[in-house]
Amino acid sequence: MDNTKKVFREIKADAMLTASPDLRRYLTGFASSFGYVYTDAQESVFFTDPRYAEGARAALKNSFIAVEVAKSEETVLDYIKSKRIRTLAVPLERVTLPVMEVLKKKKFKLADSAPALKKAMCVKSEEEIALIAKASDIAEKAYTELLGWLKEGVSENETAGYLEYLMRRYGAEDRSFETIAAFGKNTSVPHHASDDTKLAKGMPVLLDFGCKAGGYCSDITRTFLFGKSADEEFADVYGKVLEAHLSAAEKIREGMTGAEADALARDRLKSCGLDKFFTHSLGHGIGVNIHEDPRLSPSGTDKLEKNMVFSVEPGVYFEGKFGIRIEDSVVLDGGVRSFMKTDKRLLVL
Amino acid sequence: MDNTKKVFREIKADAMLTASPDLRRYLTGFASSFGYVYTDAQESVFFTDPRYAEGARAALKNSFIAVEVAKSEETVLDYIKSKRIRTLAVPLERVTLPVMEVLKKKKFKLADSAPALKKAMCVKSEEEIALIAKASDIAEKAYTELLGWLKEGVSENETAGYLEYLMRRYGAEDRSFETIAAFGKNTSVPHHASDDTKLAKGMPVLLDFGCKAGGYCSDITRTFLFGKSADEEFADVYGKVLEAHLSAAEKIREGMTGAEADALARDRLKSCGLDKFFTHSLGHGIGVNIHEDPRLSPSGTDKLEKNMVFSVEPGVYFEGKFGIRIEDSVVLDGGVRSFMKTDKRLLVL
Repeated sequence: MDNTKKVFREIKADAMLTASPDLRRYLTGFASSFGYVYTDAQESVFFTDPRYAEGARAALKNSFIAVEVAKSEETVLDYIKSKRIRTLAVPLERVTLPVMEVLKKKKFKLADSAPALKKAMCVKSEEEIALIAKASDIAEKAYTELLGWLKEGVSENETAGYLEYLMRRYGAEDRSFETIAAFGKNTSVPHHASDDTKLAKGMPVLLDFGCKAGGYCSDITRTFLFGKSADEEFADVYGKVLEAHLSAAEKIREGMTGAEADALARDRLKSCGLDKFFTHSLGHGIGVNIHEDPRLSPSGTDKLEKNMVFSVEPGVYFEGKFGIRIEDSVVLDGGVRSFMKTDKRLLVL
Repeated sequence: MDNTKKVFREIKADAMLTASPDLRRYLTGFASSFGYVYTDAQESVFFTDPRYAEGARAALKNSFIAVEVAKSEETVLDYIKSKRIRTLAVPLERVTLPVMEVLKKKKFKLADSAPALKKAMCVKSEEEIALIAKASDIAEKAYTELLGWLKEGVSENETAGYLEYLMRRYGAEDRSFETIAAFGKNTSVPHHASDDTKLAKGMPVLLDFGCKAGGYCSDITRTFLFGKSADEEFADVYGKVLEAHLSAAEKIREGMTGAEADALARDRLKSCGLDKFFTHSLGHGIGVNIHEDPRLSPSGTDKLEKNMVFSVEPGVYFEGKFGIRIEDSVVLDGGVRSFMKTDKRLLVL
């Protein structure tokens, strides 16, 4: 991966310095809880502590990124000073006041690297797409097995935990975010925190989950019925959310804005009076972070480009009754190609 | 809980404003992904969005903390302005530049609330201690069951996932941090990221894990042998780490500094030549965050006080061979009382 070069060529500064774990992972492809990535026109250096140095050297041995041991920010900043760097790019929105004080003391002129990082991270390489595909396959394999395990009386918490366990059993490094398992009327809360609600016959079940492979995330939501529902409205609404999903997935094209993509699903729901229950945006970018650019929302100005990876997730929520969300992770290449293979038609378990 | 009052009385400012999720949880006892806690001498107001307002009102109904709906920071800052607040305390170390710009624009004089927050959070109420005890019981119940489940050929990843699943099955809201499961020589890496290493006879196993109950964390590490080890050194070193643990736990007293507590274990390991392999500190505070004050480290200046909760976790690591860490979460009350009931003597499964 040469993500450092990809970002650096967009930056107007002599050098850039990056400290956040997710950005370090993106730039180096190597996971660490401490470190700094320094890049200028000639070189990239990953400064980390002795715990990670050996692993980093092995992982980056065919890369142009050198590995150096550094115990503190001070060492790194002195190195940069020694290279006579004047303008240093850092992701300003993540810089806290104490760090700012240190940078000021060292007399660097600061530039913002956040826009270049965001822009580069949006568009995935083939290698990154393959990792997201792997994370998607693992998530769906776990989900398929979970369907056979679900039984009356299990709690949301237990279900979320078991799904996360299955993803790890099938090779995930970790979950990509805290799994949402919602039963019954809890499905009507878009970001329900799984609790000890027990599964009973006829309940809708909403599972929003994903995992990480090689540092990259997958994200998928399925809503289904645990036995036939007494509520006939459910199947009807499900069909409409599914139509909104399929219609958006079919029509999204390179060059659209995030807002135009969002409108594909929103307008479809509007035509049957459901748009006011679609209380979130259609989707978000997916990469080393579970939420990144582009934003597919009514105010999304990002232009959608080839090899962007994002979620398509229309949902409607009837407070105190039920909610339905149907989400795939997809990659844009002309139109969108979904990473998901599990059926999206209404499942009655 | 009246944690807002507890913090506010330590602050030299007209009011305080807190935005981070962990601090919101601490101040209100209510979990949310968006919100602000405002406190002055007369009132505390929890500003959150419509998703959380209903839940927050129910949870805080017997509290003096009022709940208001706010969609943006702007609304909250205008409210504070309307109360003619001049000096506003915020946790400066967490404030990023964009937020700083907004605060400056509103012409607030800023004070730092971080020291008061840290100080208040260190010393736990009986209610907080009961939650940590509950989180500890759940973690140990899961661990005990996991011991019966472990078998040759399971991977570290799968083991970590299964332990997390068991904790949720027994009532945990979530893990308190990413579980470390290390087999064989991976135990020699203090913060090993669980991978697909498979369990084989004779391997040491290190499990560092914990969960959350009511927002509060538990933290425990056990190291044991999966069948008799060929390496006789292991049992010998284990005995010495256990002595260091027990000796420190027996001698820690209120009024000691973090450094003095740390030295109890470090000196004991020094007496048998093992101190150079004890590459981290003895312990850290535990609360809504898995790592908080006090720091029990060679440079720890915090004075240990009654009702502080922290970890006691000496460890030694022989690179490429094995590592041993034995960790309990404890509360200080005269001496320390451990939350853990599982045996710390060497277990050979």
